Amino acid sequence: MNRQHWSAARVTVGSKDDPTTVGEFARSCDVVTFDHELVTPEVLQALTDSGVPFYPSASAVVFAQDKLLMRRALTDLGIPCPTWRHITSQTDAQDFAEVVGYPFILKTSRGGYDGRGVWTIEGPEQLAEVLAQPLPANGEWLAEAMIAFTRELSAQVARSPGNQCVAYPVVQTTQRNGICAEVISPAPDLDPRRAEQAQEIALRIARELDVVGMLAVELFDTGTELLVNELAMRPHNSGHWSIEGAVTSQFENHLRAILDLPLGTPRAIAPWSVMGNILGADVGDLYSAYKHVFARDPGLHVHLYGKEVKPGRKVGHVTAVGSDLSDLRNRVNHATGYFSGDINE
Amino acid sequence: MNRQHWSAARVTVGSKDDPTTVGEFARSCDVVTFDHELVTPEVLQALTDSGVPFYPSASAVVFAQDKLLMRRALTDLGIPCPTWRHITSQTDAQDFAEVVGYPFILKTSRGGYDGRGVWTIEGPEQLAEVLAQPLPANGEWLAEAMIAFTRELSAQVARSPGNQCVAYPVVQTTQRNGICAEVISPAPDLDPRRAEQAQEIALRIARELDVVGMLAVELFDTGTELLVNELAMRPHNSGHWSIEGAVTSQFENHLRAILDLPLGTPRAIAPWSVMGNILGADVGDLYSAYKHVFARDPGLHVHLYGKEVKPGRKVGHVTAVGSDLSDLRNRVNHATGYFSGDINE
Repeated sequence: MNRQHWSAARVTVGSKDDPTTVGEFARSCDVVTFDHELVTPEVLQALTDSGVPFYPSASAVVFAQDKLLMRRALTDLGIPCPTWRHITSQTDAQDFAEVVGYPFILKTSRGGYDGRGVWTIEGPEQLAEVLAQPLPANGEWLAEAMIAFTRELSAQVARSPGNQCVAYPVVQTTQRNGICAEVISPAPDLDPRRAEQAQEIALRIARELDVVGMLAVELFDTGTELLVNELAMRPHNSGHWSIEGAVTSQFENHLRAILDLPLGTPRAIAPWSVMGNILGADVGDLYSAYKHVFARDPGLHVHLYGKEVKPGRKVGHVTAVGSDLSDLRNRVNHATGYFSGDINE
Repeated sequence: MNRQHWSAARVTVGSKDDPTTVGEFARSCDVVTFDHELVTPEVLQALTDSGVPFYPSASAVVFAQDKLLMRRALTDLGIPCPTWRHITSQTDAQDFAEVVGYPFILKTSRGGYDGRGVWTIEGPEQLAEVLAQPLPANGEWLAEAMIAFTRELSAQVARSPGNQCVAYPVVQTTQRNGICAEVISPAPDLDPRRAEQAQEIALRIARELDVVGMLAVELFDTGTELLVNELAMRPHNSGHWSIEGAVTSQFENHLRAILDLPLGTPRAIAPWSVMGNILGADVGDLYSAYKHVFARDPGLHVHLYGKEVKPGRKVGHVTAVGSDLSDLRNRVNHATGYFSGDINE
């Protein structure tokens, strides 16, 4: 049997939201995993019914799908979160505003992504307006205190079904307009005890929520404490640096974990890695930028995803690995700016 | 247009030796390349007729397909080769034996691979026996002096249509039973002037033969000089270390070259890389070895090709990258030995 030909030939084309299609596909697999968390409850049920192991499991992935369930679970575990409240009425929201003050954050518990489904509420009028909007399927309103963070961090771990875990270096993430723009690994000037604390939080969440595969824990660093912002149960944008910057990439460790194989070392191969996202601009032709970017910097790692280019959409990323952080940041920022059309030389 | 879906969906299934199939496939492409040199003259003609650029071109790849044409071309260019002779009769061969003495090497000019099509001729009786065998299509007999080399080297370069070239570190290759077993990058204790000479030879061949893409020049190091053994015009086994061990892998630079994009830096990311081939053993189940190999050494890079396992066939490779050469060699040799069944713990 030629496995290589066999794996390329076996492709199921259909809707990822159709339980029958996904269930049939699952029955042809040894193990199933997801590349995102937008898996409907009906599809999760079809996967459960198929009897084929899938990771993260339905009972774990729900905490990455539903921010309200996530906040409840983490609070029960004693893991530090921003002050939060389930909002079921205008009165709930006004009570919360009185406790934490304006501005605060209002979120839908489900369906948000890259800044969508999140509002900064500046006053009562805006609050009423946002609450008047329809909720996504199975969604609830969740209010959270606005955190005056000094920076955002991400702690990634991989966990296998037998509870073997590895923790990646803790990275610093910088968002622009709610979308991750730059990741630096490891987070500069992070106290080693604080880094260890971030890794402990991620390891504890992975174990307690029985996550199998990659888990990313996005954290607010307030300068005095770490608070959990969000969870992702898959290879995550904050770990793309690991493709070239770590001995074992997050993608390989995700697959090793779901296949119940011993995990690879997450150690960095160089002092610094910098990753920058390429956001779609008005000009849709990314390919023509290749020549200039490659010619200017033959040491960059450029990844374009082949997605349709829309303004603000993540359509690729660039990574540089080395020992001079300032040089790496300049090079990555130039390339992402050039691809996005902000820089023309 | 969703390019990602489009590229996955567009697969042509057919024989690589059928000129019509390959010609039609080519007409659906922007550029075509090969993963091996066993492309028939009829298929090369169909590619030429398609009008689509393909690399290496028909006029270049013939020097990697036909060892007699290669020897003639290199000798014309003044590039050092073992003493050689085109053999058209028993008398030619006897004359050659008188000049260089027994043992010498007899080869078919075409169709050899991994030690096939090559004989060490110990005396007149064996010579007659081998010459009585049928030649492959378009093949000729080629005799070469047996070289008392101290080791074998490989010099890899990438070259673009516009003649941009990059040279990888020169590596040491060790063959067992005519098959590459281990590659060390860079070649240990190689005089920097000798390394530069090897790179110059490879760059000169790439330019003179108009090779586009990757070129590997396999060399005999006699201790006093370098002699060209063979050429490969594609990503080559001696460059697999570059997947994890170089800033830009041979595969990426092959694609950059044929796409006429600026080449990436071939620099190593660490002092040493060691690559070992996994040869198929009598036991066909490689997957069961994963657990032990991964658990014992979480820093190894293991590649299995999904090929049917046959004794002696290259079915995968293992790479380790770091600063302690002896440690890297031990780790790689353990893993390849364990996969092949020679080591059981």
